[in-house]
Amino acid sequence: MPTVDIHTHIYPPTFVKLLRSRTTVPYIRTSPDEPHSSRLIILPGEDDPSTPSTARGRPIGPEYYDIAQKIAFMDTHRIDKSVISLANPWLDFLPSEEAGEAARRINDDVERLCAQHEGRLYAFGTLPLSAPVETVVTEIERLVQLKHMRGVIMGTSGLGKGLDDPALDPIYAALEKHNQLIFLHPHYGLPASVYGPRANDYGHVLPLALGFPLETTIAVTRMLLSGVWDRFRKLNVLLAHSGGTLPFLAGRIESCIKHDGHLKREGRIEGRRDVWDVLRTNIYLDAVIYSDVGLKAAIDASGPDRLMFGTDHPFFPPLEEDVKEWHSVTANYGAIAQAFKDDQAAAQDVLGNNAMRILNLR
Amino acid sequence: MPTVDIHTHIYPPTFVKLLRSRTTVPYIRTSPDEPHSSRLIILPGEDDPSTPSTARGRPIGPEYYDIAQKIAFMDTHRIDKSVISLANPWLDFLPSEEAGEAARRINDDVERLCAQHEGRLYAFGTLPLSAPVETVVTEIERLVQLKHMRGVIMGTSGLGKGLDDPALDPIYAALEKHNQLIFLHPHYGLPASVYGPRANDYGHVLPLALGFPLETTIAVTRMLLSGVWDRFRKLNVLLAHSGGTLPFLAGRIESCIKHDGHLKREGRIEGRRDVWDVLRTNIYLDAVIYSDVGLKAAIDASGPDRLMFGTDHPFFPPLEEDVKEWHSVTANYGAIAQAFKDDQAAAQDVLGNNAMRILNLR
Repeated sequence: MPTVDIHTHIYPPTFVKLLRSRTTVPYIRTSPDEPHSSRLIILPGEDDPSTPSTARGRPIGPEYYDIAQKIAFMDTHRIDKSVISLANPWLDFLPSEEAGEAARRINDDVERLCAQHEGRLYAFGTLPLSAPVETVVTEIERLVQLKHMRGVIMGTSGLGKGLDDPALDPIYAALEKHNQLIFLHPHYGLPASVYGPRANDYGHVLPLALGFPLETTIAVTRMLLSGVWDRFRKLNVLLAHSGGTLPFLAGRIESCIKHDGHLKREGRIEGRRDVWDVLRTNIYLDAVIYSDVGLKAAIDASGPDRLMFGTDHPFFPPLEEDVKEWHSVTANYGAIAQAFKDDQAAAQDVLGNNAMRILNLR
Repeated sequence: MPTVDIHTHIYPPTFVKLLRSRTTVPYIRTSPDEPHSSRLIILPGEDDPSTPSTARGRPIGPEYYDIAQKIAFMDTHRIDKSVISLANPWLDFLPSEEAGEAARRINDDVERLCAQHEGRLYAFGTLPLSAPVETVVTEIERLVQLKHMRGVIMGTSGLGKGLDDPALDPIYAALEKHNQLIFLHPHYGLPASVYGPRANDYGHVLPLALGFPLETTIAVTRMLLSGVWDRFRKLNVLLAHSGGTLPFLAGRIESCIKHDGHLKREGRIEGRRDVWDVLRTNIYLDAVIYSDVGLKAAIDASGPDRLMFGTDHPFFPPLEEDVKEWHSVTANYGAIAQAFKDDQAAAQDVLGNNAMRILNLR
């Protein structure tokens, strides 16, 4: 009975080198005050010059780029296989002419890491979304040939105008044709203004706890409303963080669509695939939600055969020294155990069987 | 076995007169093209001059201000009692010197409507939040004396800086002292930029389906993080739309707090009341969520004794002509029936018994 982690990130060496070479967000900064440690700054709000440089972003160490630490983390937490993916910000920030080559280099780097740990590691590839669409499609076709690749990770910006942009259609078509799943993952959060004037008093809590899942919810709802799944009926998307808040809000989304005068006048209420159909046919959810309350809603929305365990490693390490098992991981294990306390088989499906089947792992 | 609707809005005559006298958001506009109908424009994004005037905001008719229509709606939907509240935008937009008098006039207007329908109507009052804090506290003390008032409705802006503003403490203290519940209701949504360049193609779906609940989630999380419930341990808040998305995200919010280095350095992780404690002690949720998936998460988060049926009338009327029962109402009835299909007593608690007890109705 394997345990499979499908939400676990890596910055392969080529990507770390790229971030170290930069001086604006996203970048890795080594402060003169702390020459032996570096900080990863990926959100614009984290680079406020009024914040001490030792409090910007988060510390970055080998847990981000050393694959041996990934394997050790897996061993500590009884994880048999991991499907690793580049973390945000991916390559969205690169100039068009650099993105295609960077994606090839980084995907090959990740493929190499997987091959070094045969049977333990698979991966989602990274697309050069700032490059011309043909370059993106070419990379999708190349990824299909790489032995350990099982889809692609993608942020919410798409080609810069969101995932409801019709210009993405050739990319969706290629992903659907090759049965490549999109792991949809947030990055940009929400504008800092929504958190109010005291947001900095609360550390990173508001953008991390709320900005990320709300961003995901908006992105997937825009995809739904633009008819992506009416045009690409077999396009599969794995939503990070149990869908952001989609399972909870699906009823309200459907109700608002059915009551919208503009959509009715345009004849767009009938004939479309509704949110429940898409949730149960095209959407997969991770189980990274830290509570059985949310997890049960995710199960109810998409089905216990569509959820997959994840950790979000290396994010959310314990703050205490000398803690062996990460609290963030045990919270997600605990949520699964609690939600399925009367159905061990379903618990095992979420822990690993679903991922083995859906992602065709061996 | 009474059915009680605790989320149902009214614009009393004095408020309609006020909105008709205005020419900027919020206002009621009668277009020269449609002299016999008016439109209510309450969100800045709805007043885009490039939109035809007949498509801005929503039509407003007697269902917004004629209490006879409220009673007829209640009769059609088998609702015994309603706790009516002024809808957004309340009085947040008024100049400081006008707000106190406007609140008194409007609250007296609403109290009069309740007295005209003794036993059927109760109300949440409206606070003059743009007035000096002493004026607000005086109005709270006055509301306590009005026979049909059962708390206050409040948006997320507070005194203009959000509900985590320490300047609100005298208001929270007065509400706690007099055991007056806050009905926390969204209004402003999120900045239009988060919905992307094609948002107008989707009618009002994105701001209504997502903006409102996400705004509520951010507001209540800011209250939690600022320690409102550590300082006011008996302050009760009823969250609109089943808490926005709080039940789904509560686990992630707790996890992000426990993993935040800044909060740890400031000694603010231990000793505080956590989100689950507050959900089960201070927070009530309405059952306006249009699906049993979300409703079950709301029940799991706060308990079946803390949820109360609501309709959001007069919003979300059916688009079809000659429909007697509103789909938006039957969706919420259906969600309760489905969530409690094995526990009729709990269903009846959510439909009315909880409201009778919590709001001391007769």
